[in-house]
Amino acid sequence: MEVRRVYNFSPGPSMLPLEVLEKAQKELVNYGGTGMSVMEMSHRSSAYMEIIQEAESLIRELMDIPASYKVLFLQGGASQQFGMVPLNLMKTGKADYMETGQFASKALKEAKKFGKVNTVASSKDKNYSYIPDIDPDKLDPAADYFHFTINNTIYGTRFTKLPETGNVPLVTDMSSSILSEVYDVSKLGLIYAGAQKNIGPAGLTLVIIREDLMGLAGDNVPTMLDYKTHSDNDSMYNTPPTYSIYVSKLVFEWVKSLGGVAAMQKINEEKAGMLYDYLDNSSLFKGHATVKDRSLMNVTYFTGNEELDKKFVKEAAKAGLVTLGGHRSVGGMRASIYNAMPVDGVKTLVEFMKKFELENKEK
Amino acid sequence: MEVRRVYNFSPGPSMLPLEVLEKAQKELVNYGGTGMSVMEMSHRSSAYMEIIQEAESLIRELMDIPASYKVLFLQGGASQQFGMVPLNLMKTGKADYMETGQFASKALKEAKKFGKVNTVASSKDKNYSYIPDIDPDKLDPAADYFHFTINNTIYGTRFTKLPETGNVPLVTDMSSSILSEVYDVSKLGLIYAGAQKNIGPAGLTLVIIREDLMGLAGDNVPTMLDYKTHSDNDSMYNTPPTYSIYVSKLVFEWVKSLGGVAAMQKINEEKAGMLYDYLDNSSLFKGHATVKDRSLMNVTYFTGNEELDKKFVKEAAKAGLVTLGGHRSVGGMRASIYNAMPVDGVKTLVEFMKKFELENKEK
Repeated sequence: MEVRRVYNFSPGPSMLPLEVLEKAQKELVNYGGTGMSVMEMSHRSSAYMEIIQEAESLIRELMDIPASYKVLFLQGGASQQFGMVPLNLMKTGKADYMETGQFASKALKEAKKFGKVNTVASSKDKNYSYIPDIDPDKLDPAADYFHFTINNTIYGTRFTKLPETGNVPLVTDMSSSILSEVYDVSKLGLIYAGAQKNIGPAGLTLVIIREDLMGLAGDNVPTMLDYKTHSDNDSMYNTPPTYSIYVSKLVFEWVKSLGGVAAMQKINEEKAGMLYDYLDNSSLFKGHATVKDRSLMNVTYFTGNEELDKKFVKEAAKAGLVTLGGHRSVGGMRASIYNAMPVDGVKTLVEFMKKFELENKEK
Repeated sequence: MEVRRVYNFSPGPSMLPLEVLEKAQKELVNYGGTGMSVMEMSHRSSAYMEIIQEAESLIRELMDIPASYKVLFLQGGASQQFGMVPLNLMKTGKADYMETGQFASKALKEAKKFGKVNTVASSKDKNYSYIPDIDPDKLDPAADYFHFTINNTIYGTRFTKLPETGNVPLVTDMSSSILSEVYDVSKLGLIYAGAQKNIGPAGLTLVIIREDLMGLAGDNVPTMLDYKTHSDNDSMYNTPPTYSIYVSKLVFEWVKSLGGVAAMQKINEEKAGMLYDYLDNSSLFKGHATVKDRSLMNVTYFTGNEELDKKFVKEAAKAGLVTLGGHRSVGGMRASIYNAMPVDGVKTLVEFMKKFELENKEK
């Protein structure tokens, strides 16, 4: 079968490992001799229970998730978590938030519907190009939780260390960096991640939650938005997004086969390093994010000339390097280089940028 | 490629048309020469926009949805709708509900969190084996809406005509019968359906809503649970379950290729007819549902002997007729014969039942 695959730099949904797609393709009509597709299986069948249990066991192993944490397979994406987090965790009605980008702001705004929000720090002043320092005096020691977006997809920044908040539980949106580098889950109270970047197909949301943070939701919280509903039923309170979970399981197997998250991180540092090294030496392109806070997953850059940026995105697409346009709130270009982006994809992009720079330098 | 497919009578997730699975399989790694899988596409890319727009256009055509209705592609299943319906539609704080099964009861119970619920009629007295008549005096003419479950998956009953409620908008859970028979959408205010029975893979929820029923949600409603959020953004407020929508589009094309919903209904009447005719003449098996309210999608029956029921389910599975066990609240057997179940599947089941009856009659 001839397949001419492109290098897809989409911020999400985004590339999946070719091995995963080929395995899913092979098994699509008839899974493991069951005589049916995974899409057709009752979520309560033994064949499917094996899949979801294996998915959970793999993510626990890959992220070294302590036994005192629950892993939930939910729906609705990070956007639904923006509401679920305050609805479940605001037991005294107040929380600390970091404002480091558009999704961080959306989370913060949604939380205001349900309680008092203290904005600890913001990088809005410089179009979210950096992660602001935290002034300890700004922290509320009685906050129900502290929320931050550990990787900012649109701006290409990331927290390189976890905020220190004492006994206040850390809650983080890890949608665009989960499984890309090693995180200490035991230092976090709640992690949520939309699947469509580093996990699997859109429509699945992974939640990792410390058990003591469940059961706090009031009676007025919709049953489906209460973490405890899903925890008490092992993510089977209602029909979960079965096929997305299956593909995610294949992705977890793939990460494990490469050596796990630490090995993945090394590859990601290599990939991002190639791009940043080139950007730092380019006279045409410059990066958007401050050097110290650069993301390993989303590399944002521009030429300073909008027409030239457009030309770049267009010519790159012709060369099989697609979805490189930056988000409208930053402009320029963004290369999302999640786990599934091969090293060769980044090499090809850097080569293309060099060639483009040479051709467009004097103009 | 040799594929020995089984006849899968699962209540959901359930069978998909083989043609759909084979097309999805063929396109899985590289869709239409884009160089990527549909799973990998940005939901805002032109290739994906074509898919979702075509899906909407097909469902509008198939169900003859008036222009004054919005079609929304959401997540969370019917269970999430149980909360969204009252949160959005209870503008004066009261609604009428029919109690015709377990999901109907769940919807009713969830609505009680948010307002006053009037149970118009219930068939709980006979284990939901029938659709109760509606006493017009029990209707609240000032109710914000009237909720019913048009097909009751667990019990195998269905409304054969729409309730008459005057100006009170009808809201229905159509998860297990959408696209199986012709409904007059213009007589309904809001339809919701989990995809995993007659539409596509689990993880997608279809909502069809009359425009005037949107924009009524209060400020305290989570953004993601407000229908208007999704309507204003053409189901792209956040990343939709892109792959499930794509497979659903293939299913819609398949229904259309067979002649649309009216043609589908004829086939479904033929399939259900074969099973009910046999049940009515069997001395071993009897149906659970009252004759006048029988579902075309879920056929519930039993022998009256639990051991024999178990033997039947086990032997049927060996013969390639799988997932025939009834729900624990009814017992016995349930054959879910959604659109994708071929006529031959039902024929094979009836033949198997005849043989089983002959072999087990005298015991």
